[in-house]
Amino acid sequence: MSGDQAVLSPAHVTLEELRELGQQLRVDSIRASTSAGSGHPTSSMSAADLLAVLIARHLRYDWSDPGEAANDHLIFSKGHASPLLYSVFKAVGVVSDDELMTGYRRFGSRLEGHPTPILPWVDVATGSLGQGLPAGVGIALAGRYLDKLPYRVWVLCGDSEMAEGSMWEALDKARYYHLSNLIVIIDVNRLGQRGPTELSWELEAYARRVEAFGGRVLEVDGHDVAAIDKALAHAGEPDSDRPTVLLARTEKGRGFSEVQDREGWHGKPLPADMAQRAIIELGGERNLRVNGLKPQPSGRPQRPGPGDAKVTMPTYTRGAKVATRKAYGDALKALGTRPDVVALDGEVSNSTFADEFAQAYPERYFEMFIAEQQMVAAAVGISTRGYRPFASTFAAFMTRAYDFIRMAAISLADIRLVGSHAGVEIGADGPSQMGLEDLAIFRAVHGSTVLYPSDATTTAALVGAMADQDGVSYMRTTRGAYPVLYAEGEPFPIGGCKVHGATPSDQVTLIGAGVTLHNCLSAAEALRSDGIAARVIDLYSIKPVDTATLAVAARETGRFVLVEDHHPEGGLGEAVLEAMASEGLTGVAVAHLAVSVMPGSGPTEELFNQAGISVDHIAAAARQLIGAAKPG
Amino acid sequence: MSGDQAVLSPAHVTLEELRELGQQLRVDSIRASTSAGSGHPTSSMSAADLLAVLIARHLRYDWSDPGEAANDHLIFSKGHASPLLYSVFKAVGVVSDDELMTGYRRFGSRLEGHPTPILPWVDVATGSLGQGLPAGVGIALAGRYLDKLPYRVWVLCGDSEMAEGSMWEALDKARYYHLSNLIVIIDVNRLGQRGPTELSWELEAYARRVEAFGGRVLEVDGHDVAAIDKALAHAGEPDSDRPTVLLARTEKGRGFSEVQDREGWHGKPLPADMAQRAIIELGGERNLRVNGLKPQPSGRPQRPGPGDAKVTMPTYTRGAKVATRKAYGDALKALGTRPDVVALDGEVSNSTFADEFAQAYPERYFEMFIAEQQMVAAAVGISTRGYRPFASTFAAFMTRAYDFIRMAAISLADIRLVGSHAGVEIGADGPSQMGLEDLAIFRAVHGSTVLYPSDATTTAALVGAMADQDGVSYMRTTRGAYPVLYAEGEPFPIGGCKVHGATPSDQVTLIGAGVTLHNCLSAAEALRSDGIAARVIDLYSIKPVDTATLAVAARETGRFVLVEDHHPEGGLGEAVLEAMASEGLTGVAVAHLAVSVMPGSGPTEELFNQAGISVDHIAAAARQLIGAAKPG
Repeated sequence: MSGDQAVLSPAHVTLEELRELGQQLRVDSIRASTSAGSGHPTSSMSAADLLAVLIARHLRYDWSDPGEAANDHLIFSKGHASPLLYSVFKAVGVVSDDELMTGYRRFGSRLEGHPTPILPWVDVATGSLGQGLPAGVGIALAGRYLDKLPYRVWVLCGDSEMAEGSMWEALDKARYYHLSNLIVIIDVNRLGQRGPTELSWELEAYARRVEAFGGRVLEVDGHDVAAIDKALAHAGEPDSDRPTVLLARTEKGRGFSEVQDREGWHGKPLPADMAQRAIIELGGERNLRVNGLKPQPSGRPQRPGPGDAKVTMPTYTRGAKVATRKAYGDALKALGTRPDVVALDGEVSNSTFADEFAQAYPERYFEMFIAEQQMVAAAVGISTRGYRPFASTFAAFMTRAYDFIRMAAISLADIRLVGSHAGVEIGADGPSQMGLEDLAIFRAVHGSTVLYPSDATTTAALVGAMADQDGVSYMRTTRGAYPVLYAEGEPFPIGGCKVHGATPSDQVTLIGAGVTLHNCLSAAEALRSDGIAARVIDLYSIKPVDTATLAVAARETGRFVLVEDHHPEGGLGEAVLEAMASEGLTGVAVAHLAVSVMPGSGPTEELFNQAGISVDHIAAAARQLIGAAKPG
Repeated sequence: MSGDQAVLSPAHVTLEELRELGQQLRVDSIRASTSAGSGHPTSSMSAADLLAVLIARHLRYDWSDPGEAANDHLIFSKGHASPLLYSVFKAVGVVSDDELMTGYRRFGSRLEGHPTPILPWVDVATGSLGQGLPAGVGIALAGRYLDKLPYRVWVLCGDSEMAEGSMWEALDKARYYHLSNLIVIIDVNRLGQRGPTELSWELEAYARRVEAFGGRVLEVDGHDVAAIDKALAHAGEPDSDRPTVLLARTEKGRGFSEVQDREGWHGKPLPADMAQRAIIELGGERNLRVNGLKPQPSGRPQRPGPGDAKVTMPTYTRGAKVATRKAYGDALKALGTRPDVVALDGEVSNSTFADEFAQAYPERYFEMFIAEQQMVAAAVGISTRGYRPFASTFAAFMTRAYDFIRMAAISLADIRLVGSHAGVEIGADGPSQMGLEDLAIFRAVHGSTVLYPSDATTTAALVGAMADQDGVSYMRTTRGAYPVLYAEGEPFPIGGCKVHGATPSDQVTLIGAGVTLHNCLSAAEALRSDGIAARVIDLYSIKPVDTATLAVAARETGRFVLVEDHHPEGGLGEAVLEAMASEGLTGVAVAHLAVSVMPGSGPTEELFNQAGISVDHIAAAARQLIGAAKPG
């Protein structure tokens, strides 16, 4: 390795130096992946010249201060090109050669196989293709409409990932929201994992699609640094209200003749001997240091805060019938006095009641139309700028975005998702509209919070708590209007529950949440009239779950009836069983009532009855556990 | 209602009769939804003229024999227009007016809020927008490449749903596979649920997008029956190798001045008085009967079968190290002698080993590139024609298609999905590539089967069983190679498990599946050397789970260590807890080891250790349950 470190500055760097920098990025990508014994060097090599020119001449980034609000953003949507990204980090001086060579893909290192935000220069985790661009749309939305700062969002995409519909949802929303601050670079290297891509090097075909979706298209030879420089300059200075897409014709494995543009080299590190030959062919190791452009400092704090906003949460009268989805809308609107609260919805805001916020704070509301993947990705992107997004649609349609939700957790994003119209409770619309898997899928997300309020008071309190909750939090709301159970001011901590009518002589505990809590309360009444004392637990916090209170009920009553408007797997019932097992609480007799049938359309009560979660079913299950026949 | 029933036949129907039929479909859509008190009449009225001309003049369908293989297919991707679809079924004589008026959206009726295949003329359930067209692509693939029959697939789409990326995945694949048998009708009525769509009536914008994605575009005034007739004739006689997209400019609520092209009328039945006025304005009730075109009978059975194919499953030597993903590829290839077995993959067939089938049976293999939603939808579509599709990608990326998987169950589809590279076991690629939620999401699907073999012998047996399994079945395979545990010919029934080393004096049962089963076996060895008798259960069938065998182990050992390479929620552990609860088996002491941390990159063993699912952790958990300290 050369001992001298040449420093490249934007105004003085020569084309030859840019070429050299590209070769350095290739060599370092090879070295890192060969030393790790895994990784994607050839997918890195195709984009090396693009990145060399971008970081040396165009990206505005204060590498010493990744928290500077005015920094540009750099997202590798093709996250498998992590060797290239980390080689960039070396070139700009924030990662040492030693870390690159000994850390990449090693246990405990921050240089993971695919980039994650445990690195301060990484906004979002990528590696599930088709997600970096949608997240970049979210950051660009924040830049244009919330931060109102002139930063640009540069997203490096692979050509293979253009097969994901989510990429077109992203471009469509970038057009709709006039995101001229978004620059998409597509590394068209022609080869996917197992062979040629659908469109190969048909740049014209990509261009037609991008233009049809409203993007400004630039085309470039992705290995001609002079042409790249010109194209990036053009791309970076928007003269329109459209996003820019730079189509770069490249070669996978470019620069090493044994792999260049050849199949069979995806995701494979070069064996040591090949790596040695590659480095020689690429001109050896280099130690160029990039001293790139910095943004005009914004003088802003790294993250917006609630300021001194006064939030007055809505209150409800006990006994009044209010749908929790309506209470969500009311509470969200109330939170709107906080300048850091943002809302999104998937074209159903008049059903989720997100429209209350949309009407009150249109400047902080983003309509995502029927594009749930993009909705969640936009929330993730917006959250990286410190805002507190709430995104809503029907609970059933949250399933559409599950890969994005899973990745949001890996992105360490703080986002709030709200699914309305959950369960068979919705009635006539039928099973396609019934969220019957949402609790299971959200519980399985790392570090998630899962809430299911049964009344408007609880909903308002929990929406307030969600605003400041870390990680992925999810609230399930109900279509129909049910009585308000709790008085104003009642506390509803996340991880808590509410116990109704506990006495030392309770024979059984009925555990429900949301709509089934109402059925449990009615069942307890029915049992009481039979002389059976039943305790009811409102398990509004499904994750974390209030293990301590459940344990008391287990010890005192010895019998649980678990009732949920959800498939039997992975929801409230299993959350309770898991909590009991973790406490070593054996000996509790359990009846688990859930939706095991395929429901159809019909009135709510008929569907409750068909699913076996009606008031009568709950009371009968309790009696059976107790061994008591119904009197009379 | 008119007592006379005029019968319209394709050759003689007049334009005026077509107009009248359109009005009848509108009137019936209004009557049905008003009588039900819910539904989407205005979304039905916009497409009524399109459907009138289609069924009277172009659709080739033997309504008396929906199983006729040569029938065209009619899919309402905009499933909320079910009043229109059911009014069509009345017009062709398969649903009575009485059923329409008393059944629609009623409990127990087959006329559900959104169409489902409990109706014999419905191929797939719709209602989650953006799914009918992708499923139609699957049927068109079957028509062109498998059935090799000249049927056409007509898909009615809403304009709002064009915001879903999945629609563009579908058009892209329709182009790639030259599906000239696919005709997409987009009902551009300008209004979504809560207001105007993104593109309103910009038919040119839609046209540019469709053309860029390779579709042939036709445009039509969707209320001019003569123009529609011409366009459908053109669309139905493909003169190219492209799918056709007919862009129809329509008005929501067309024909009733109080709602026509007005906001605020999505998904709302007309109140009785308005319905009365509407019917008057539309010219009253009619009773036209359509006697449409029939296809040339194919003489084919309704569904292809395995024929007399001889399937010779691969066998493996005990102790040899074979990855279960490799065994999947071997077994799938072996199944390929059956002409009804079809495979699909999401551009990772060299990792999932679906490429073994692709190379042996290219005519029954469909490369879906990186479009997991379309992959699952294509499998659903292909399955409606009686084929037995297997679709594979990484377990992590099955999450991308979860809404499609959920809907597949509602479609009563028999599909087989296989997710490779599950869990932290994959090592260096990091968390974005680790399926850690897959067991939870698949368990939560109605009627699903969830399998997780630990060795090649088990894998081959279960792949064979999956071929004939109903519903959505899922298999999780492992990246690394582990020893073959079972001998050739060992039976592995779905719903079973394998017990290792049971003795009456076992003190604890270690329960694992897939990769953790190997760790459990090693832990049992370690415990044995300490004098602790541990039984091991290979829970290869996670759903259904072998409750009986688990119950025996619970009674005999009283202690369970549950070990899974999956997040703690919704997977193997909770499946066992649920099974125990259902049996009333209280009193089992349980330790549940699962991946609660956010894993990074690294070697498998380090990641097992970090997650607490290593051999040592299992043995320690067993000792702790028993109350025995590790000797020495």
